[in-house]
Amino acid sequence: MQVDTIVRNCRQLITFRGKNQPLKGKEMRDIAIIEDGAMAIQDGCIKDIATASEIANKYTADEVISAENCLVLPGFVDCHTHPVFVHTREDEFAMRLQGYSYIDIAKAGGGILNTIKTTRNASEDLLFELAKKRLEKMITLGTTTLEAKSGYGLDTESELKQLRVIDRLTKELPITIVPTFLGAHEYPEEYKNNHQGYLDLLCNEMIPAVAKQGIAKFCDIFTEADVFSIEESRRVLNCARQYGLKLKIHADEIEPLGGAELAAELQCISADHLGSASDAGIKALKEAGVIAVLLPATLFSLGSKSYARGREMIDMGLAVAISTDYNPGSCNCDSIPLTMSIACTQMKLLPVEALCATTINAAYALELGNEVGSLEIGKQADFTIWDIPSLNFIPYHLGSSYINSVYAKGKCVYQA
Amino acid sequence: MQVDTIVRNCRQLITFRGKNQPLKGKEMRDIAIIEDGAMAIQDGCIKDIATASEIANKYTADEVISAENCLVLPGFVDCHTHPVFVHTREDEFAMRLQGYSYIDIAKAGGGILNTIKTTRNASEDLLFELAKKRLEKMITLGTTTLEAKSGYGLDTESELKQLRVIDRLTKELPITIVPTFLGAHEYPEEYKNNHQGYLDLLCNEMIPAVAKQGIAKFCDIFTEADVFSIEESRRVLNCARQYGLKLKIHADEIEPLGGAELAAELQCISADHLGSASDAGIKALKEAGVIAVLLPATLFSLGSKSYARGREMIDMGLAVAISTDYNPGSCNCDSIPLTMSIACTQMKLLPVEALCATTINAAYALELGNEVGSLEIGKQADFTIWDIPSLNFIPYHLGSSYINSVYAKGKCVYQA
Repeated sequence: MQVDTIVRNCRQLITFRGKNQPLKGKEMRDIAIIEDGAMAIQDGCIKDIATASEIANKYTADEVISAENCLVLPGFVDCHTHPVFVHTREDEFAMRLQGYSYIDIAKAGGGILNTIKTTRNASEDLLFELAKKRLEKMITLGTTTLEAKSGYGLDTESELKQLRVIDRLTKELPITIVPTFLGAHEYPEEYKNNHQGYLDLLCNEMIPAVAKQGIAKFCDIFTEADVFSIEESRRVLNCARQYGLKLKIHADEIEPLGGAELAAELQCISADHLGSASDAGIKALKEAGVIAVLLPATLFSLGSKSYARGREMIDMGLAVAISTDYNPGSCNCDSIPLTMSIACTQMKLLPVEALCATTINAAYALELGNEVGSLEIGKQADFTIWDIPSLNFIPYHLGSSYINSVYAKGKCVYQA
Repeated sequence: MQVDTIVRNCRQLITFRGKNQPLKGKEMRDIAIIEDGAMAIQDGCIKDIATASEIANKYTADEVISAENCLVLPGFVDCHTHPVFVHTREDEFAMRLQGYSYIDIAKAGGGILNTIKTTRNASEDLLFELAKKRLEKMITLGTTTLEAKSGYGLDTESELKQLRVIDRLTKELPITIVPTFLGAHEYPEEYKNNHQGYLDLLCNEMIPAVAKQGIAKFCDIFTEADVFSIEESRRVLNCARQYGLKLKIHADEIEPLGGAELAAELQCISADHLGSASDAGIKALKEAGVIAVLLPATLFSLGSKSYARGREMIDMGLAVAISTDYNPGSCNCDSIPLTMSIACTQMKLLPVEALCATTINAAYALELGNEVGSLEIGKQADFTIWDIPSLNFIPYHLGSSYINSVYAKGKCVYQA
C-alpha cells in the first residue's frame, strides 16, 4: 500500500500503546517498545506501526525518513503552561534570592499584578509574536502538544484577547494547542476589596463570554489561601461546567486547602500542582479518576526543598502527569526533558514514569488521549527522534539537547 | 587604528574587569557593566573595550560584528569536568532512583570501575571522537574554556592515553582546554587489596611519567572516606608538586574528612565539591586563599536535599567558582547556564555571583585569571552574545538556550 511517509530504522520505538485511558500506578512503566521499528504515516496520522520488516513488506512511500538507528518517542504533551504575557520577571527571581517576600516584590511593582497590567495594555499582535517565539523554542525541545492558559487579563476583554492570541497560535504553529480560560487566576487590583463582585463578573459575564467566543476548552482556577477559596472555586467551576467548559484546578500548591478534594467532587479532568495535597485529597483524586498534574520545575525554580508526593501517588495507583508550568513568575521553564530530570531526581519518579507522565498521561489530562501522547494506529504522527542509548538518558542528562528532529502531524517541525 | 574585528551594538558589556585576583565575597557582585559598549579585537585578544562611541572614534576594522542590542558576557569557564570516557551510565541513574546502592550498581557491572574498564580498552581515536562531540555541545552553551581530567585509566598507559586525548582536543577544538591528571580518582580493581602498591605506582611511576609527557597542568585527587585518605592524599599531592604539577583536590564531597583543611595546608589552587566541608575547613580555605569550586549539578543529579554552603562561603569572604562536574556517573550536565540556575535556586547565590563563579573566578581556579574569564584589555576575546533582558535571566530561565553566538579567541565558534 502507498502511504505519505515511512519512518524506518528506529532502534527503539517507544509507543506507550494501549489502555484507552491514562496509565495508572504501575501501568506507567508499560512502555511497549518495538525494537527495530517503523511507522507508516498517512494524512498526518499513524497508519501502521510495527517492526521494520513488517512495515517494509506492507507499505511504500514517496517520503522515507530514516531515524538513523535512534530512539523514536511520542512528542511531548506540555499540559499546563501560561505563555501569553509581555515581560519575563527575572529581576523578581533575583529579589527572591535576596530574601524579598511576595509582598516586597509587589510593592516594587512586580508580581502577577504587573504581568496583568502589561498584558491588558499590550496589543494582540505583540502578545502573539512574543508567545510564538516562546512556543517555537518549546518545539525544538520536543513539545508537540501544549495547553496554554489565559489568566493575565482578569477583565472580560483582556481574557478574550489572550484566548484569541492562543487561537492564533493554534492556527499559525504546526503543533496542537489547547486553550484554557483562567480568569480566576487572581483577584484583579480593582476587585481587591470586592471579591464577590469579581466572582459575579466571572460567572455572569466572563464565563458566558468565553463560552460564546468558543475558543477555550477548559476552565481553570487558582484555588489557594488568599486567592480563591474552596467555596468560591466550586461556584466558578460549576458555572463553567454549565457553559460546556471542561474543568481544571490549581489545587493545594502551597497549603492543603482541599483543592484535591474539590477536584474529585467536581470530577475535574486534572488537579494541578498538589505540592501540599493531603492524604485524603490524594485518595479522593484516585477514587474519582482525576489526573494529578505535577509541576516540579516550579518548586525547583522557587528553591523549595519539598515537592509534590509524586512517587507516593504512583505507588498508590494514581495517574500522574507532569508539565513545565511555563510562566513569567514562578517558573520560566520551557523544557519537558529538564522537567523530567527534576521529577526523577527530586520526586524519585523512574525515567519511564516521567516519560509516561509527559506524553500519554499528559494527553489524557487534556482529554486528547485518543489523538496524541502515544504512538498508535490512528493517532497523530507526533514524534521525536533522539540520538541516545536508551530513554533513561533523557532525565539522566542535563543541559544540551540530544533531539535530532521533531515531527508534528507527520511533518518535520524541527531539525537539529 | 585598524584592528581585526570590532564588536559593537552591545546593550550591556558585562566585563568583571579588574582585580588581578579572584573576586572574593561581596566583590563577586562587582560586575563592571559598560552600557552601549563595544570591543576592538586584534590577534584573538581584546585590544580595547569601552563605550560604542569611544571605540568608533578610535578603531576601524574589516570585520564588524553587531551584537544586535544584546548582552555580551565573558565566555564560560567550566573548571571541573571528566569528559574522556566511552559509555554514559544512564541505567545507573535509573537504578539509584529505585533505591539500588553504589555496591548493588557495582555488582551489576556498573560504577566507575566499569568506566575504567571500557576506557582502558578503548582506542585513543574513539575516546577523542566521543569527547569531541561532548565538548562541541558545551561550546554551543557558551563554554570557551574547559578543564578536563583523566582518571578513568588508573594505570600508567591508560592515564597517559587519556591525557593525549585531552591534548588532541586542545589542538583540534577552538576553545581553551586545561588538562588535569587524576590518576588518584579511585583504587583500580587490581590494587583493591594493595592500596600501598597503587600509591607507590602513582608516586614512583605515574606522576613522573605524566610530568615527562608534559601535557597535564594540574594533579587532582579524590580525597574521601574509602578512597584516598588525608594522609595518602598529602603524599600524592606533595609528590605531584615536586614534579611541577599544580594542585587540585576533590575535598569533603560526602564526608567532612578534612580535605578542605588539606587543600589549605598544601596551598592547592582549588578545593572542589565541599558538600560536607566543616566550618574549620571553610575557614582554612579562606585564610589560605584557596578557591572553593562548587559542583551543585552533581548534588542535584544525585537527588540530594543538601548542597555545599555556597551562600555562607561568599558571605564569609571566600572566592567561589562553580562548574558542571560533567561526568558519566554522578552528573551528566554539560550546561553552565543550568548549573547557574541550580546554584541560585538551591544554594541561594545571586545571579551575578553565579556568573562571576563561572567566569572570572573559574578562570583563576585554572590559574588562567590573566588570560580568560573577563572582558579586559589584553585577554583572549572569548565572549557570548545573549538575547535576554538582563543577566538575571540566565539562571531564571530553565531549558532552551538564549545564546545567539559564542566567540573564542575572536572567532565565532557557534551561531544559533
